[in-house]
Amino acid sequence: MIVEMRTGAAPEEIDSVVQRAKSLELDVQLNVGTEKTVVAILGSNTGQVSTDMFAVLPGVESVTRIMKPYKLASREVKAEDSLVSINGIEVGGKRIIVMAGPCAVESEEQLMEAARAVKDAKASILRGGAFKPRTSPFSFQGLEKAGLELLAKVKEQFDIPVITEVVDSHYVNMISKVADILQVGSRNMQNFTLLTALGKSKRPVVLKRGFSCTVTEWLTAADYLLAEGNSQVILCERGIRTFEDSTRFSLDISAIPVIKKSSHLPVIVDPSHAAGHYSLVPAIAKAAVAAGADGLLIEVHPNPKEALVDGLQSLTPSNFTKLMEELRLIAKSVGRYI
Amino acid sequence: MIVEMRTGAAPEEIDSVVQRAKSLELDVQLNVGTEKTVVAILGSNTGQVSTDMFAVLPGVESVTRIMKPYKLASREVKAEDSLVSINGIEVGGKRIIVMAGPCAVESEEQLMEAARAVKDAKASILRGGAFKPRTSPFSFQGLEKAGLELLAKVKEQFDIPVITEVVDSHYVNMISKVADILQVGSRNMQNFTLLTALGKSKRPVVLKRGFSCTVTEWLTAADYLLAEGNSQVILCERGIRTFEDSTRFSLDISAIPVIKKSSHLPVIVDPSHAAGHYSLVPAIAKAAVAAGADGLLIEVHPNPKEALVDGLQSLTPSNFTKLMEELRLIAKSVGRYI
Amino acid sequence: MIVEMRTGAAPEEIDSVVQRAKSLELDVQLNVGTEKTVVAILGSNTGQVSTDMFAVLPGVESVTRIMKPYKLASREVKAEDSLVSINGIEVGGKRIIVMAGPCAVESEEQLMEAARAVKDAKASILRGGAFKPRTSPFSFQGLEKAGLELLAKVKEQFDIPVITEVVDSHYVNMISKVADILQVGSRNMQNFTLLTALGKSKRPVVLKRGFSCTVTEWLTAADYLLAEGNSQVILCERGIRTFEDSTRFSLDISAIPVIKKSSHLPVIVDPSHAAGHYSLVPAIAKAAVAAGADGLLIEVHPNPKEALVDGLQSLTPSNFTKLMEELRLIAKSVGRYI
Amino acid sequence: MIVEMRTGAAPEEIDSVVQRAKSLELDVQLNVGTEKTVVAILGSNTGQVSTDMFAVLPGVESVTRIMKPYKLASREVKAEDSLVSINGIEVGGKRIIVMAGPCAVESEEQLMEAARAVKDAKASILRGGAFKPRTSPFSFQGLEKAGLELLAKVKEQFDIPVITEVVDSHYVNMISKVADILQVGSRNMQNFTLLTALGKSKRPVVLKRGFSCTVTEWLTAADYLLAEGNSQVILCERGIRTFEDSTRFSLDISAIPVIKKSSHLPVIVDPSHAAGHYSLVPAIAKAAVAAGADGLLIEVHPNPKEALVDGLQSLTPSNFTKLMEELRLIAKSVGRYI
Repeated sequence: MIVEMRTGAAPEEIDSVVQRAKSLELDVQLNVGTEKTVVAILGSNTGQVSTDMFAVLPGVESVTRIMKPYKLASREVKAEDSLVSINGIEVGGKRIIVMAGPCAVESEEQLMEAARAVKDAKASILRGGAFKPRTSPFSFQGLEKAGLELLAKVKEQFDIPVITEVVDSHYVNMISKVADILQVGSRNMQNFTLLTALGKSKRPVVLKRGFSCTVTEWLTAADYLLAEGNSQVILCERGIRTFEDSTRFSLDISAIPVIKKSSHLPVIVDPSHAAGHYSLVPAIAKAAVAAGADGLLIEVHPNPKEALVDGLQSLTPSNFTKLMEELRLIAKSVGRYI
Repeated sequence: MIVEMRTGAAPEEIDSVVQRAKSLELDVQLNVGTEKTVVAILGSNTGQVSTDMFAVLPGVESVTRIMKPYKLASREVKAEDSLVSINGIEVGGKRIIVMAGPCAVESEEQLMEAARAVKDAKASILRGGAFKPRTSPFSFQGLEKAGLELLAKVKEQFDIPVITEVVDSHYVNMISKVADILQVGSRNMQNFTLLTALGKSKRPVVLKRGFSCTVTEWLTAADYLLAEGNSQVILCERGIRTFEDSTRFSLDISAIPVIKKSSHLPVIVDPSHAAGHYSLVPAIAKAAVAAGADGLLIEVHPNPKEALVDGLQSLTPSNFTKLMEELRLIAKSVGRYI
Repeated sequence: MIVEMRTGAAPEEIDSVVQRAKSLELDVQLNVGTEKTVVAILGSNTGQVSTDMFAVLPGVESVTRIMKPYKLASREVKAEDSLVSINGIEVGGKRIIVMAGPCAVESEEQLMEAARAVKDAKASILRGGAFKPRTSPFSFQGLEKAGLELLAKVKEQFDIPVITEVVDSHYVNMISKVADILQVGSRNMQNFTLLTALGKSKRPVVLKRGFSCTVTEWLTAADYLLAEGNSQVILCERGIRTFEDSTRFSLDISAIPVIKKSSHLPVIVDPSHAAGHYSLVPAIAKAAVAAGADGLLIEVHPNPKEALVDGLQSLTPSNFTKLMEELRLIAKSVGRYI
Repeated sequence: MIVEMRTGAAPEEIDSVVQRAKSLELDVQLNVGTEKTVVAILGSNTGQVSTDMFAVLPGVESVTRIMKPYKLASREVKAEDSLVSINGIEVGGKRIIVMAGPCAVESEEQLMEAARAVKDAKASILRGGAFKPRTSPFSFQGLEKAGLELLAKVKEQFDIPVITEVVDSHYVNMISKVADILQVGSRNMQNFTLLTALGKSKRPVVLKRGFSCTVTEWLTAADYLLAEGNSQVILCERGIRTFEDSTRFSLDISAIPVIKKSSHLPVIVDPSHAAGHYSLVPAIAKAAVAAGADGLLIEVHPNPKEALVDGLQSLTPSNFTKLMEELRLIAKSVGRYI
């Protein structure tokens, strides 16, 4: 941490900064310039100490954090790439993993048709929401437990792993009985009670980025899972909120190389929620693979025109099959496969 | 809802839009222009029907919502201002209500000194967090139940109502036993499980705006509380996330007149979290009162230099007392009082 | 500037940072921690040296600027408030200056009626655009020279100073013959050719904030004017672009205390462009005065229903007169007058 | 345009909307619902009529534009892709065009080395800035005319077309004598005087997106060039301003398919300015090609460590050569070539 003193700060003001650092068992070095004094506070745990602890002291102009606030998710703690294994399917390796299916489980027939489409196109994992966090209380909220039962049934019938969203800490056990991957939605990225419960569960988790959270906050949220001993963490970029209104969200493509540089965790991309329109999904999905994403989470619905939720951003089975073929070519061009 | 057809859309495409509207029991009117056909879909519940239901149909260019997605929070449903009553203190009337205290409850002594400062400055309600949602798992997470007990004790001793945050739906009952107002933090504005539980509790709620949620999404979240029969809802603007980095968040001052125009609910302002620095709090607090806010939620700490959380944005008791005097003058100039 | 070296950086990498700093005649201090080495680079002109000069060197993890990039606009260079004088009217003192009038000059009659309204309400300065930067080439672009002539005529007739926008460096001389204040629009805040020409002109300038520029970039743009010897600079906050869509822009009310803290320049507020709707203008104008703004720039049109540009955000003369009365009360409550 | 009347609007209020539409020679259709009346205003030029013309009328709740405000840049006006030809090099066809070189022209040696690197890697066009718009007046502003002369010299020697930035309408002629493509920088996207001058020049133009402008505003700015009869327009996405701070700007990858859907103009991507760091450039460049971009604008410097401007985001010649090989594979996988 770098504490910049105000021009003309008194010696006792500088001293109080030094004393506070020492009381926190941190190393201190003074930099006395002609105009300003700068106090460098070093040590392995400065990332966990609040900058406010120094910024509130008299004579301090500003405090800048040098250590990142996240720790366990960082490449500095673990240099090699982490792999997450789901029933033998590895996320984070050479193979790019495609998870696909409807936004919401609507009926047995719908889920089975979706599963068939996903299987036929050789994607790896079936997605489908049973519990849906909806903006309005008057919208369809998902089939809930009945939806979970349908997922269990289709999973067995098609022998395909399943990912579904968990919206409350008290559902973790129940959903873990069915789902192979538990998904944390964008609105829950900083629901720390939920993250702690998922950390304890030790099940594979897809942690979607909050639509207004920085990459740093996202990796710090991942620390909640890792700190409980759950290393099965997959990050998922799904678009951030910006002023641009031609898409629902703006997919932050740069987040992929940024994550690869600063973290060991695998990262996948959800092009459907970012785009908000099926016609934009293929271009974004291809970009994600080219940029180095380890997988994709794509909405596919047997009949988007009749979808209860997010029909506009869902691909039809035939469009999905076509996209999978295109993605295979891109994967190959970056030395990977699907 | 306004459905714009693509230039040259076929008659059967237009017809399928009309049929879907009729199947949802909505009124339809066709507008056949020289270049484009526009289908107006009218009716009292179009706000609850997803635009996707029409956007997915062939030949449709775009769909624009006319009715707002929120209903119960709107002025159209209830024209007169709502008042929320907390132990006889009315929020939403001529009196501007100031809630103040430390970000986190740290100790009995700290909370008592804060309560004394709040009382002395003639503010109405004591704030203090027992459960703290923190960005990093390695930061201080609040005193939790012990903090709640301290709140109960100080509340009785100083005879002052208390507001505290609830971070999980399963804490609602426990916290309701102590707190007069339950606060939903910014990160939980779209935690719909929590909102539903709070709606059922019928206790006064302060619903903080999600730092990246629009006013429309905020009022739609308020519908979750109102739909369960809880009309004791106070909105709280606390700054939104923008590109500007000289403050922690950008306080959206315009949200106050926007809310007053479109909703009947009272709205207060938290200048402390928006500013992130105590020196900016007075100017923002004064602006909020001038713009028509019904109250303020201000961080005050007996000794900000020793605060465990958010010390930099906390006022000292003497600065708070000075601010209260200034606010009284502003309140008077807009025909209100504190 | 603080240069953080990568964990395990080689001594020669650290040395190349030190050497570069010395070659730029900057002071250097080494901070050798157990995990990382941090190089503090101090000196009066680090604000002008690019961080890239160090960030490109091998072994460097990150570079953080400590000195602000602006200089002449800062309080550190000039501690006391600057006053800008327009025909004897002082901006930046105890009096709050209101500039008002139509967005665009449309006709002699319209401008005269507006001037009369502005005079009657005892505002100080008449605004009116002759050259209009319009988003679409097919929109009304202003009366241009004819508009300027109307401004000259009305200015003389009503004996009132005039502010108008300049959109190109080659118009500065021509417009200076008529206007008492030259306005730089939001889209031109970083039109450095224009800023340099205005700096040389030595005329009073209102520098509107770019709708996506930080306060730091804004003050750095002011340095372009000040560096040419023009100290007659007034800043104008007019709303920034965010995700919120209930207003045209989000007025950054916190920018007022931030500017007052870091700069000596006067700052005014344009509530009309931020709001985009006349009904929101009064609340924002009142908030601006309460927060410490030195003036306001308000759109007033004798007949908004017939306005060629921005009618929706213009006040009628009677609404403007009413607002002026309310603003006088607020001004008094913060120890100022209008 | 869709005009929604307030609940309970009077018949004469509805009539005044109808009359105004008719006076503008627009078609009108009334939609009388049980709760609200909606007036649909149709006709070929509603995109050019301001929504304010109706929003100011009494009884109007809101006005929604249906026609896009841009016209000449739209696919509706021209369905087939436009090609821009630069000395026989076609932008917008099957070949992906790479423009590369230093941010700023610094010296003859630097520019020649850069040109050699660009030629060796088989890129098509040399970039280099002579006039640099810099945030601070104390930063290096470019070699200006001397830089232009160097561009002319190197261009001839290496027989390679050149792109350079124009920052003021009065430089268009001078720069046109040397440059094959004139670049409009992000800060000048809405400098309408400059756009008009470039439109008249009929020279190929790269129009960079304003870092806070929507795609719609960007295409509307392109209309300024097209309206003057200049059809040689190439769009360039270079990152937008968001809250994310791990990159300088957030590259809006979705803008590529959005542009391809709504406009006939070619679109290229500048990964260097978006990323701000050379290590992120390859991933973003590859994503751009996969998403359908027609070209790239990449910063390459013979010695980034000594660059006067933007060294951190510049590739070395060897890194650039390596990237070109990778890009060729991606191009092939999407049916194109470099």
